[in-house]
Amino acid sequence: MNRFNHLDDIIAAISTPLGMGGIGIVRISGRGCIELADRLFQGKKSLLEKKSHTLSYGKIISHGEIIDEALVSVMKAPQTYTKEDIVEINCHGGALVTRRILEAILNEGARLAEPGEFTKRAFLNGRMDLTQAEAVIDIIHSQTDLSRQAAVNQLEGRLKREVRSLRDEILNMIAKIEAVIDYPEHDVEEETYGNMEQGTLKILEHMEKLLENADRGKIIRDGLETVIVGKPNVGKSSLLNWLLEEERAIVTDIPGTTRDTVEEYINIDGIPMKIVDTAGIRETGDLVEKMGVEKSKAYAEKADLILMMLDSSRHLETEDKEILSFIQGKKTLVLLNKTDLERKLSMDELEQYIPKEQLISVSIKENLGFNELIHGLKELFFSGESVKAEDALLGNTRHKNALFQGKEAMERCLETIRTRMPEDFISMDLQDANRFLGEITGDVADEEIIDRIFTKFCLGK
Amino acid sequence: MNRFNHLDDIIAAISTPLGMGGIGIVRISGRGCIELADRLFQGKKSLLEKKSHTLSYGKIISHGEIIDEALVSVMKAPQTYTKEDIVEINCHGGALVTRRILEAILNEGARLAEPGEFTKRAFLNGRMDLTQAEAVIDIIHSQTDLSRQAAVNQLEGRLKREVRSLRDEILNMIAKIEAVIDYPEHDVEEETYGNMEQGTLKILEHMEKLLENADRGKIIRDGLETVIVGKPNVGKSSLLNWLLEEERAIVTDIPGTTRDTVEEYINIDGIPMKIVDTAGIRETGDLVEKMGVEKSKAYAEKADLILMMLDSSRHLETEDKEILSFIQGKKTLVLLNKTDLERKLSMDELEQYIPKEQLISVSIKENLGFNELIHGLKELFFSGESVKAEDALLGNTRHKNALFQGKEAMERCLETIRTRMPEDFISMDLQDANRFLGEITGDVADEEIIDRIFTKFCLGK
Repeated sequence: MNRFNHLDDIIAAISTPLGMGGIGIVRISGRGCIELADRLFQGKKSLLEKKSHTLSYGKIISHGEIIDEALVSVMKAPQTYTKEDIVEINCHGGALVTRRILEAILNEGARLAEPGEFTKRAFLNGRMDLTQAEAVIDIIHSQTDLSRQAAVNQLEGRLKREVRSLRDEILNMIAKIEAVIDYPEHDVEEETYGNMEQGTLKILEHMEKLLENADRGKIIRDGLETVIVGKPNVGKSSLLNWLLEEERAIVTDIPGTTRDTVEEYINIDGIPMKIVDTAGIRETGDLVEKMGVEKSKAYAEKADLILMMLDSSRHLETEDKEILSFIQGKKTLVLLNKTDLERKLSMDELEQYIPKEQLISVSIKENLGFNELIHGLKELFFSGESVKAEDALLGNTRHKNALFQGKEAMERCLETIRTRMPEDFISMDLQDANRFLGEITGDVADEEIIDRIFTKFCLGK
Repeated sequence: MNRFNHLDDIIAAISTPLGMGGIGIVRISGRGCIELADRLFQGKKSLLEKKSHTLSYGKIISHGEIIDEALVSVMKAPQTYTKEDIVEINCHGGALVTRRILEAILNEGARLAEPGEFTKRAFLNGRMDLTQAEAVIDIIHSQTDLSRQAAVNQLEGRLKREVRSLRDEILNMIAKIEAVIDYPEHDVEEETYGNMEQGTLKILEHMEKLLENADRGKIIRDGLETVIVGKPNVGKSSLLNWLLEEERAIVTDIPGTTRDTVEEYINIDGIPMKIVDTAGIRETGDLVEKMGVEKSKAYAEKADLILMMLDSSRHLETEDKEILSFIQGKKTLVLLNKTDLERKLSMDELEQYIPKEQLISVSIKENLGFNELIHGLKELFFSGESVKAEDALLGNTRHKNALFQGKEAMERCLETIRTRMPEDFISMDLQDANRFLGEITGDVADEEIIDRIFTKFCLGK
């Protein structure tokens, strides 16, 4: 599978995050890396004498000077992360120490690894497919337990197996057609067309089921990008505070995961919501409150979910109607607040804009209606079901697009069969579908796609 | 050596720096930690069947859910960092993943380790002395190669051996005196007093030699805290820029090592200089220039080195004289700039304040006098010798103070011998000295001293 250059040289990088810590790791991979590391290592035994998957304590020495004491892992191909020989030097976790050890390794002839290059080698050497490689970076970046679980499932090969089983079905069909083409003395019989139509429909059904969950998958992976809208001073910031107070568990608030901004995730009964501009709101206290109609509109454009606040004790006003107009057709829940007061809002008028099931009566003041809100959310995004990491089989846009293109090819195939076109045309459609699916796993993928994936990686992975 | 509680439980912590990275490590130490880790581990074999110092690939599973795939190191007592059983779980380097694995371990009954607690156990279990434990954190914090080398030397036990050899000499003397005391029928002879005096003098000489290098050690470890003074607009910022341009190598400028400030180290022929407020200077461009006499005075109070700028083409002015007065007696080099112009400065007048050998003629404009500056620096701090990490045997203030107190006890001992006081008094002085030295290595140290040292550590070390 050696489709790329540079698989012959030894690569090295610091694999632990930058900064102070107890342990730093410098990782080396490639044929000859054990010999290379051994030139810098002084311990009881030479690293060359060590069995695979063992740890040796010793000193890292370069130009006669001890750089640090270290614990050195030797792992021999092929049972390693990259399927190549790997050495990992665990040293003291200072920035200078790890850098000096890396420099010593580079001086011995290794090349600095590009971001993600270890995982890229794992992929190129056939240890994992592209979905599994992508899962690695998803695990590292995961901000919620659901997204981590979804990524671990993907690393375990769930998506790979699903896509491969689809491709197997398609390849079976292709094989059958090729047999027919190879023996032109046999005419394609009506029965064969019927079988192929059935096969195609079955594959399409499978594909549609996968795609159906793609939106859920995206929510689980990335969180539900949520914006709170409503005319000024309708109580938007009370809603935010209510959500923050009522949330069952704050999914993440890990310092140091993002440098400059604090992304606020709220976990509403398993549904991760990412509220737009929460950091700002928390600081200024009333940023949402001040957010006018124009600004709301801009945010609502790109949000996954719009929560609109209305005061049910007042009549619909021009500004309300304006907001209701631009959120029509979007995934919206309208919260009718102040149900503790007398209702003046006309439901008939409101239902001209928003379906009844998306209207939820709440009283933030009396803490009423939270369960109804959860129910509404689940109806809107999860057909009323509970949220599971398994639903996130497909959630990566790249996978979704490729599968969608595969589905389109299968739809063309169905049309080709139904119009009784020659068998070569059917084969071509099936091969198209097969190629799009192959892009997901990387069995078929050009260098550009692969490079784009690995540039998102961090150094040392 | 089990002088403290809590050595029986299992401790755990994340040992890699916080943040995104290829690899994260969660470390567990203590009797039973392999069994604990095995309850979370699913691989080809149980961890209990693994030999010491081996790596096993598998999954970390808690409550039926896969948290991550991991490479797990099993290291069995006593050949480990803490001299206890150790398990290290190398997982994907995301903040959430490492935290979830740590939580699973804590749920299985481990306790969250305090900062430095792994190293504290290494000390309490007799794997290293206190100077070596201190070296661990010095290595992690090291900002220059010289300070890292000095710390590695200390980790290798150079200071420990030096102090133990001093203590051996003292203990020998004590043994001889005790023998005399035990057999009171023998009077202490004149010859014995003479021998003891010689022994004491030898030890004192050894101690003085160590202390002599303590200042160099501090410079090598912490850098020479340097302040540039001079009346406004005399050319202080040109001096700074000149140093920055002429430095042989920027020792460190590692992003992420300090969070909020950028500490600027300049390496002047091996001497690490830490220029006060460089960050500010670089940003504002003329902060040094604006720094007036009062401010200069405040900075100069606590600096290791004062570089004073004078314009040799002008006569000494009141402000110059004011500065010269307050820097008298401090480690100072006075740079007489603009030697390319006609000299108007009176050397006789200047030498009333500062010794001739601390006056250095330079022309920043013509790039003249840099080697003379290096020479002056070396004369001032290293008796003209070149700078070596070996000189930093003693550089930690705690060590220096304890050794100084030991020396004072030995001086009292000398006095006791010379005045022919009874042998018990000599023994008491020697025991004092021995105790102070024991504090350095931790052979004699109370819990408070030890706790103070380990609170400086990072989590997971």
